Amino acid sequence: MDENKQQTEEVEQEEVVENPEQEVVEEEANEMDEVAKLQQEKDETYQRLLRLQADYDNFRRRTQKDRENDRKYKSQSLIEELLPALDNFERALQVEAQDEKYAEGMNMVYKQLKSALEKEGLEEIPAVGEEFDPHMHQAVMQVEDENYESNVVVEELQKGYKLNDRVIRPSMVKVNQ
Amino acid sequence: MDENKQQTEEVEQEEVVENPEQEVVEEEANEMDEVAKLQQEKDETYQRLLRLQADYDNFRRRTQKDRENDRKYKSQSLIEELLPALDNFERALQVEAQDEKYAEGMNMVYKQLKSALEKEGLEEIPAVGEEFDPHMHQAVMQVEDENYESNVVVEELQKGYKLNDRVIRPSMVKVNQ
Repeated sequence: MDENKQQTEEVEQEEVVENPEQEVVEEEANEMDEVAKLQQEKDETYQRLLRLQADYDNFRRRTQKDRENDRKYKSQSLIEELLPALDNFERALQVEAQDEKYAEGMNMVYKQLKSALEKEGLEEIPAVGEEFDPHMHQAVMQVEDENYESNVVVEELQKGYKLNDRVIRPSMVKVNQ
Repeated sequence: MDENKQQTEEVEQEEVVENPEQEVVEEEANEMDEVAKLQQEKDETYQRLLRLQADYDNFRRRTQKDRENDRKYKSQSLIEELLPALDNFERALQVEAQDEKYAEGMNMVYKQLKSALEKEGLEEIPAVGEEFDPHMHQAVMQVEDENYESNVVVEELQKGYKLNDRVIRPSMVKVNQ
């Protein structure tokens, strides 16, 4: 649209400029100058308007994208703070309790916590038995294990997590050579 | 914007077509008209530019404010999901455990969780002994208690929380008449 308009205006301006050469009255020439000048100023203002409109549109689009992104990962900082507590919760639950009823209560609390986090988009990264993936797994050790194929995760030392599609903590793993 | 532009071009094209058919005097008058017309169009375009600039500035300001607000309360939805688990954790910890070591481990997990939430801006609302505040407290019962002043909270049935300066869950309380 922008280009077409500019072409149209150029054609019009040429005609305005050519006109005075046909008639020799000076006053008329002055007025034609004024017309040309005004036309030019009007065009310039219009071009500024178009540029500003384009800037505005771009800003609006970018802002919307940024805000969608913000929303998608808004809980990341809190979840990152909570993961060590979640790790410890899991470790604490693995201790064999002499008080089964108490342990059962704690297990329910853990599940409730975990499910609130999952609802927000938290997901455990699969590890043991998976092919080693440097985007998901952090290899802290290489081992030789006949039970697994080469380059496969044989043990998980710390759980990894994704928030929606973003890895927020890779799994710490042992990988088969 | 598009419509206005189209109008302008139509008018200009008509004149270009009419011009050759008119006499010199008329032409002069036409040129004066054209000056006035161009001046007006230029002014209108400039006014549109100013309005658009003002809109853009407003939008930018509002967006920035919105995003600051988003950031301040970004964890609210997750925290609201976590509060019932936190309540249950507290209840579970109040059960007297026969396995002290196990209970100690769970207590540490609870503290770690709580501190991650506090770091994000979560705060318990003071209740017992405070003057009843309908913005912070939800009265579920009225009692008569000589040990407290009138209109003072005498018992908390469920903890209330603020996230930064926003009450995300009022305390459920008994209030002295």
